[in-house]
Amino acid sequence: MSKKIIVIGGSAAGPKAAAKARRMDEFAEITMFQKGPDLSMASCGFPYFIGGFFDDRNKLLCTPAGAVRDPKFYWNAKGIVAKVNTEVTRIDRQHKKVEFTDLMTGKKGSQSYDKLIISTGATANMPPIPGSDLDGITNLQSMQDADYLRKIRDEGKIKKAVVIGGGLIGIETLEALHLAGIELTMVELLPQLLTFLDWKMAKLVQNYLKTKANVITKNGVAEFKGENGKITGVKLQNGTEIPCELAVVAIGVRPNIGLAKEALLDIGSLGGITVNEYMQTSDPDIYAVGDCCEIKNIITGKNVLAPYGDLANLEGRVAGENVIKGNVASFPGTIQTGICKLFDYGIGITGLSETKAKEAGFDFVKVINASPDKPGFMDGKMLITKLIAEKESGKILGAQCIGPGDVSKQLAIWATAIKGNLNVEDMVNADLPYAPPFSLAIDHSIASAHILQNKMNGVFEGISGVDLMEKLNNNEDIFLLDVRGPDEYEQTRLGLGETLIPLGTLRMRLDEMPQDKNMEIITYCKISLRGYEAAVLLKAHGYTKVKVLEGGITAWPFDKEK
Amino acid sequence: MSKKIIVIGGSAAGPKAAAKARRMDEFAEITMFQKGPDLSMASCGFPYFIGGFFDDRNKLLCTPAGAVRDPKFYWNAKGIVAKVNTEVTRIDRQHKKVEFTDLMTGKKGSQSYDKLIISTGATANMPPIPGSDLDGITNLQSMQDADYLRKIRDEGKIKKAVVIGGGLIGIETLEALHLAGIELTMVELLPQLLTFLDWKMAKLVQNYLKTKANVITKNGVAEFKGENGKITGVKLQNGTEIPCELAVVAIGVRPNIGLAKEALLDIGSLGGITVNEYMQTSDPDIYAVGDCCEIKNIITGKNVLAPYGDLANLEGRVAGENVIKGNVASFPGTIQTGICKLFDYGIGITGLSETKAKEAGFDFVKVINASPDKPGFMDGKMLITKLIAEKESGKILGAQCIGPGDVSKQLAIWATAIKGNLNVEDMVNADLPYAPPFSLAIDHSIASAHILQNKMNGVFEGISGVDLMEKLNNNEDIFLLDVRGPDEYEQTRLGLGETLIPLGTLRMRLDEMPQDKNMEIITYCKISLRGYEAAVLLKAHGYTKVKVLEGGITAWPFDKEK
Repeated sequence: MSKKIIVIGGSAAGPKAAAKARRMDEFAEITMFQKGPDLSMASCGFPYFIGGFFDDRNKLLCTPAGAVRDPKFYWNAKGIVAKVNTEVTRIDRQHKKVEFTDLMTGKKGSQSYDKLIISTGATANMPPIPGSDLDGITNLQSMQDADYLRKIRDEGKIKKAVVIGGGLIGIETLEALHLAGIELTMVELLPQLLTFLDWKMAKLVQNYLKTKANVITKNGVAEFKGENGKITGVKLQNGTEIPCELAVVAIGVRPNIGLAKEALLDIGSLGGITVNEYMQTSDPDIYAVGDCCEIKNIITGKNVLAPYGDLANLEGRVAGENVIKGNVASFPGTIQTGICKLFDYGIGITGLSETKAKEAGFDFVKVINASPDKPGFMDGKMLITKLIAEKESGKILGAQCIGPGDVSKQLAIWATAIKGNLNVEDMVNADLPYAPPFSLAIDHSIASAHILQNKMNGVFEGISGVDLMEKLNNNEDIFLLDVRGPDEYEQTRLGLGETLIPLGTLRMRLDEMPQDKNMEIITYCKISLRGYEAAVLLKAHGYTKVKVLEGGITAWPFDKEK
Repeated sequence: MSKKIIVIGGSAAGPKAAAKARRMDEFAEITMFQKGPDLSMASCGFPYFIGGFFDDRNKLLCTPAGAVRDPKFYWNAKGIVAKVNTEVTRIDRQHKKVEFTDLMTGKKGSQSYDKLIISTGATANMPPIPGSDLDGITNLQSMQDADYLRKIRDEGKIKKAVVIGGGLIGIETLEALHLAGIELTMVELLPQLLTFLDWKMAKLVQNYLKTKANVITKNGVAEFKGENGKITGVKLQNGTEIPCELAVVAIGVRPNIGLAKEALLDIGSLGGITVNEYMQTSDPDIYAVGDCCEIKNIITGKNVLAPYGDLANLEGRVAGENVIKGNVASFPGTIQTGICKLFDYGIGITGLSETKAKEAGFDFVKVINASPDKPGFMDGKMLITKLIAEKESGKILGAQCIGPGDVSKQLAIWATAIKGNLNVEDMVNADLPYAPPFSLAIDHSIASAHILQNKMNGVFEGISGVDLMEKLNNNEDIFLLDVRGPDEYEQTRLGLGETLIPLGTLRMRLDEMPQDKNMEIITYCKISLRGYEAAVLLKAHGYTKVKVLEGGITAWPFDKEK
């Protein structure tokens, strides 16, 4: 008798699981229930549809060959019954069936399963504040949300909007609406945007974002203001009011676990469905995949919520195989790699941030590297990487990378290095693809490893911009040495009472340095490569407390003089 | 007393070694000898200077901050004495000194060392055939060669040129001269271009290159023809004559080992200086780095010549540290990662090709994956990857990648995976950076691992285009099944008597398939994802010999019907 497989959810993980199950068993009866009207929407592509990167909505719903992934397609090409506009209302574990309602007709029904896959996704959070029901307030979660925002772009009437929440979705939505010609304000409750990054890296993103939009941090939304049922503004917790005709709320998502909870499946402490490495829930006949479940962070061993489209697909593939073959495939977990585009910038992380490494109790070393992705003559663009490694072993724990350069390649390298348990020493002599159209002779990732190796060997002593500013704020006596050229100094400088001695003249001008060899000296240049050479030189001449400002002027997160 | 370091060679590895030595010891006396007039030229950038990607020659000689790396710069910024136009004529190991000649004045001298670093590079080969001394025949090796070819671009007089040799430099030179408006012919003695790739991958490159230039393989150059001392054409071994006013010879390089050989240092069987992991020669006080030495291939454990700019820099860094600190740093060797750009294509490899894996005696599995780097709605571009893994362990042995997509990232991922000893199973659930501007939800690299995993599990049985063609040429009885849509079929098809049954109709049209369930069936589509689903379906319906054409129409290396 053929196996009966039911999949609840038809967005990302669900269709992948269903398709994989079909390939494992041509004769299984596979049914996929989808509450909404669309299937297998490329929801990560919504911001680019709204932003006008493309105009044909169908592209979000099509296979690469151009077939719309509707129920007919699923039946013809994959032999999968896809029931759209159909809500599963209950999982009856005892009788191994699901109860459902056709949302168009109101008709109810039930269907039995041998194996069930839950991929119910997540719901966008809304702040519990007055005015939330006004017109002009939306999330960017569903195809309908995307259509709504795209229509706003096409009509071109709205002038001002507020994006609430500075996470990935907030950032991507802001770009999309900016490209739609709307004046934007981003409001974030926490002291920084993009909390998966460390403060300094997020601050550099914020500095860039400020050239495109108004950015408010450490301030939540207290109330939506409106007239005639339409939003007219956002009132912040500090009383400020920002007039706007549109507010997009992007303050995170929470797993949809209603069905699972009611069916008494185990739920984790973070609010997601508990699964084992086979993506199997506490009921051996029920699997769960995608945003609705908790998965393991490979580095810390702790559970996390990781609502990412790529992981949803991989998890779906594992569950799809296991429901047919038994538990033959396993999902190892995540290192929480994430990336987003913000105009000309790429922004992302893989592995642990410094904050998370601390939380997890690691003893670690870290470094900032600012340098281009390609040679200047090939129009190389700047990258800023923060690399974190375990102190004793040198094992790579995490990398953050931002900038106009090729961030995606950098993160892919570090993600694979973490997967391979590589340490700093391994990456120092990595053999990566080099030719000028693609990379520097010493790739940015390798250079990052070099600096961290120098730091671990005690050759390079660095200080971050944040730590330097703290020292200056504490009125510590510090000699700031800028070793760039006079032209560069003229263009931009820290403006903190620094002394300019270009590296090429430093050996001849040592007499201009402080008499006190124990004075604290901080050296830097544009990216602190010359700054590093200056520091080495000064130490050789007896200065005992010389540090390099990591990432130099480029990675300086505070205001500069121009 | 301060240490005396001499470096012979000032192009890539030499300057890196000298600079690293300086950072390790501020008071060492460091002298770098350079036979030519320029120092630290970005020689990998020559093709892009010639091709007009940039016009300022100084960009090849400058630091990122814009300082020309001349002897003055080396002295002021790095405290290194750089003697240009000065040829080292002998290494006197007994007295630990080098003898040199100033090529401008003819003055001779000698200088003693505590540690010596040889980075004499390599010399471009010239074929030993008549006419080699005619004007208009050049390599692309030195700054002078680059200037010569750039002048040809700027003057715009030359109409036809021949590039001899289809390796990396030949390919890059061809692009550069094509961009200079010159009509080109490429001549390669061997049956394929780019011999570091397997035949099929190279053939796909050749198919693309043919849209830009005339390509001749399996044919060497017999003679350069000329008039009045100037080249007028190239005569091939089969008698064909190609008229041209310029010939660029790019048939590989050989290590410059004259000094080392005369000093009786050990030379390897491939003709490079022998070094250990510390980059130390058979004389403990002499190190060698860069194109002049042999290094270890990490995968095979055998020595190779690997004249790449990135490795030269890494080797230089290791030697620079070791001459000061003793042998504290080591260089692990290479996996021979290489990449080049050819107009819109990236082309490269990391690890072993199928040919090399065979030579090294590995029992391996392989797969071809053709799929885009990004979603269609983000203007994703095609990539074709050939992935090779050890059969028993699944350990990744090598990856070749070509196409208009982001080849560099793919190779960087596989290079890091090889470094980390990762196997196919590890890469199946890799956690790479995903967002639509950067990648598909399942990155091309992960999809490659998925297909290879399916193949290893026996779920996916593939056949390469080359093997299929061989079967067809042997008149084997094969049912070719194209499962694309009629529109796609109309645009282009194999034209080998195939049957078209779109995947979405296959379940209903099984009666159109051969009666004989043991007949050999090959399924495919554009990239063979639908082809794979069709194969699974047919096997479930009793067909016993069904294979998928790997990479589908996209990776088909032979002619197609249009």
